[in-house]
Amino acid sequence: MAKASSGRKLTKKDYEARVPAVREALIQLQIKLQAAPFPVLLVIAGDDASGKGDVVNLLNGWLDPRGVETFAFHDPTDEERERPPMWRYWRSLPPHGRMAIYAGGWHGDALAADPRTPRELAEFDSTLARLTHFEGLLADGGALLVKIWLRLGADAQRDRLHELEGDPDTAWRVSPEDWKFHRDYVRRAALGARLRRATELAAAPWHLVEAADPRARNLAIADALLARFKQHLRRHAARPAPRKPRRITPLRPVGLRMLQAVPLDQTLGESDYAEKRAKWLGRLNRAVRDAAQHGRSIVWVFEGWDAAGKGGAIRRLTSAIDARDCRVIPVAKPTDEEKSHHYLWRFWRHIPRAGRVTIYDRSWYGRVLVERIEGFCRPEEWRRAFEELNDFEAQLTAHGIIVIKFWLHLSPAEQLRRFREREKTAYKRHKINAEDWRNRRQWAAYETAAGDMLALTHRPAAPWHLVAAENKRFARLEILRASCKAIADALERE
Amino acid sequence: MAKASSGRKLTKKDYEARVPAVREALIQLQIKLQAAPFPVLLVIAGDDASGKGDVVNLLNGWLDPRGVETFAFHDPTDEERERPPMWRYWRSLPPHGRMAIYAGGWHGDALAADPRTPRELAEFDSTLARLTHFEGLLADGGALLVKIWLRLGADAQRDRLHELEGDPDTAWRVSPEDWKFHRDYVRRAALGARLRRATELAAAPWHLVEAADPRARNLAIADALLARFKQHLRRHAARPAPRKPRRITPLRPVGLRMLQAVPLDQTLGESDYAEKRAKWLGRLNRAVRDAAQHGRSIVWVFEGWDAAGKGGAIRRLTSAIDARDCRVIPVAKPTDEEKSHHYLWRFWRHIPRAGRVTIYDRSWYGRVLVERIEGFCRPEEWRRAFEELNDFEAQLTAHGIIVIKFWLHLSPAEQLRRFREREKTAYKRHKINAEDWRNRRQWAAYETAAGDMLALTHRPAAPWHLVAAENKRFARLEILRASCKAIADALERE
Repeated sequence: MAKASSGRKLTKKDYEARVPAVREALIQLQIKLQAAPFPVLLVIAGDDASGKGDVVNLLNGWLDPRGVETFAFHDPTDEERERPPMWRYWRSLPPHGRMAIYAGGWHGDALAADPRTPRELAEFDSTLARLTHFEGLLADGGALLVKIWLRLGADAQRDRLHELEGDPDTAWRVSPEDWKFHRDYVRRAALGARLRRATELAAAPWHLVEAADPRARNLAIADALLARFKQHLRRHAARPAPRKPRRITPLRPVGLRMLQAVPLDQTLGESDYAEKRAKWLGRLNRAVRDAAQHGRSIVWVFEGWDAAGKGGAIRRLTSAIDARDCRVIPVAKPTDEEKSHHYLWRFWRHIPRAGRVTIYDRSWYGRVLVERIEGFCRPEEWRRAFEELNDFEAQLTAHGIIVIKFWLHLSPAEQLRRFREREKTAYKRHKINAEDWRNRRQWAAYETAAGDMLALTHRPAAPWHLVAAENKRFARLEILRASCKAIADALERE
Repeated sequence: MAKASSGRKLTKKDYEARVPAVREALIQLQIKLQAAPFPVLLVIAGDDASGKGDVVNLLNGWLDPRGVETFAFHDPTDEERERPPMWRYWRSLPPHGRMAIYAGGWHGDALAADPRTPRELAEFDSTLARLTHFEGLLADGGALLVKIWLRLGADAQRDRLHELEGDPDTAWRVSPEDWKFHRDYVRRAALGARLRRATELAAAPWHLVEAADPRARNLAIADALLARFKQHLRRHAARPAPRKPRRITPLRPVGLRMLQAVPLDQTLGESDYAEKRAKWLGRLNRAVRDAAQHGRSIVWVFEGWDAAGKGGAIRRLTSAIDARDCRVIPVAKPTDEEKSHHYLWRFWRHIPRAGRVTIYDRSWYGRVLVERIEGFCRPEEWRRAFEELNDFEAQLTAHGIIVIKFWLHLSPAEQLRRFREREKTAYKRHKINAEDWRNRRQWAAYETAAGDMLALTHRPAAPWHLVAAENKRFARLEILRASCKAIADALERE
């Protein structure tokens, strides 16, 4: 934890002598940060009535407001309530080069809940663990997080409440709850300390700032910001660009073996397929409606070799689902807005509302497949991603979302046959391009990466279904069947 | 109105003989549309129980679902309710190259309200007028709108409801309201006809399709889609790219005269300013809080010459507003997501929730300023924009949003002085670039365009405030004063 500011009083004269230089330095750094390939997240949290709002407004005045957005999380809206709790923080994240100020941070909700019983405190701790994970994820993604904690002693708190009440312009800011919390100062301060301990991170430490004297407080905050801004710019400049690796070596050979053990000789005759398909489509339709009636959303993930039949399988699936409740998200090159956010942001964007369906045609697993192989991210980044992806899905499933993941498997020979067929058929020609052929030449690399992915992200709550896709009919039916089962199992466990 | 399909019955054999070719043609055109610089909006509306959901699902099966998103508008969420009614349609709009299918269209809400009294019918008509305007706007923006109306006779409706009820898989789709509407068939059908008449547009006509026989219905819809897809692709290919105009001639010379009549010799002394500023900042703070308490949002628009002091004025303004309720949106080059939408989309995105504030640093008026002058849009586009912008703002003000627009005016000599000063001062140098100098050389063009803008978009509910910005202190105070007055006036009119 960063050292607390001294808490000495500052004369108005001393303060005003220092402010212009501080403001200019801040603006200068803000300009530099605007060109930086990372966002800046500024958390202004603190003890009750410690002046968080004043600080937020001060910083908005000192900084160029065109590059800053301020967020305060009040009661979640219904669109937010229907998604995992972290969704509303994810959607607030600024792109590279911009700054967000979080009044109360994402920590405010946890403190407002005012936990007391052992059970409430356990929930408080688990919320904090989730927030810590979130901050770690953002910091690992390159974001600069500056977390300020405004500390206010009991006497200073009482004085401040009186002062606010005394001015007709600010009296409205003092509520009966403020006085209630003041009478309970020791317990509330301990809660704050518990929060700071739980959410302390090397990459995102708390800066403790004495808040009793606003002038000293302001300068202490400015000093912390300036130091962190400079440090982060320096560190980032020193960071080498990622490079394409020469070789892809397996982390978990068992995954590769799983993949190679998929029996590709399974087939299904035309008439057999037609009959079974009708039955399973009907079942799937009922299963999806059942899930919706229980307020459960479904997220399908389709990964697999080029030409393995993802598109066709998705088309069969959607034919059984009411299109009004279903979105298909084709995951290709990110848009520039997506590129200037954490790599998971573009997937959080499309998480369905309660009772709806999102089908991802390729997904967040691109991080450990194409990005690993082509060197679009650094080795430590894709290595870390396995755990990040597991955690992301754990958040979905914890919220009741049913996650169904398919890997469509294929032999190189069958892929070649399909590529050639596509090239011959006029209306399929758009489905094949130079990139497909390039990926094909890297078959072994993709196989290794896919093997690691399967081994490291196969979890009970979000298991992988390996589908033999050598025969399209067999694969499509298998997908219908596995989907029905996954939904039924999830509803049964309720 | 496009001719209704014949309504003949089609045998299964005839149908199945035609379907494969139709589907292939649709997929082929969908591929072409993916590369087209416009979105496709497909409205599937119709009489009660006419099978809109079935058609939506059919089309999702026929088309590649990866390029299609389906929307059905149910009860607005609270985030939607806090914005003008059209906001939720705007946020659903797909980018260029993608397709959205609207189950029930934006017309569904109007029909669901089931207006009966003269007063309800008048409101129905005014909703329809708003929808028609919306469709016209999108069509003018290049979007392809295909509107299908499924027509179902009274007897066929009764048969269909019985049929749905007879099958345990579909019985849930029939509600008591369906039967109530059936008994009231004549009135409901007339309501549909009234809706179609009111929302009929040359660029977005209704395609009437007999829905009694699903096979004939499906082919009639496919035919309509194929014809419209082809026609729109052809028309769009023939469209010349916009070009930079050689000369900017005024449409309304009165605007230019207004601009030139702004007395630029007004000044304000330092101490006078300091004293008055404190007073007006306090008033503004109270005015914004007052507005929030009444659930009124505020939208500020800042336009004016480069270096006229927009940034500084905005900084003064935000210093009086709680940063947690306020966003500043700097409007520069659009992101690629923004570029692939209607030009107003990027502004609709940021419309504040109830009681919040958005400040646009430059705005939608770029359409009739830089885009007109640089030829980023066609002459008919910027000419049309005056009315489009007025309508956009009228929607905001009709929803209770307070719109405050400033033009910061300056002499060329003072601009030059400020440019030179910026070049000399290290921490201001980032604020000036080659584009600023190029814009300056086009002073007369900008003056003419700004004059037209002032003359054509000055409306009682969203008036322009012309601010003499030759003296920064004078301008800043003027902005505070005019803002306070605008808010007070708006609240008084409540």
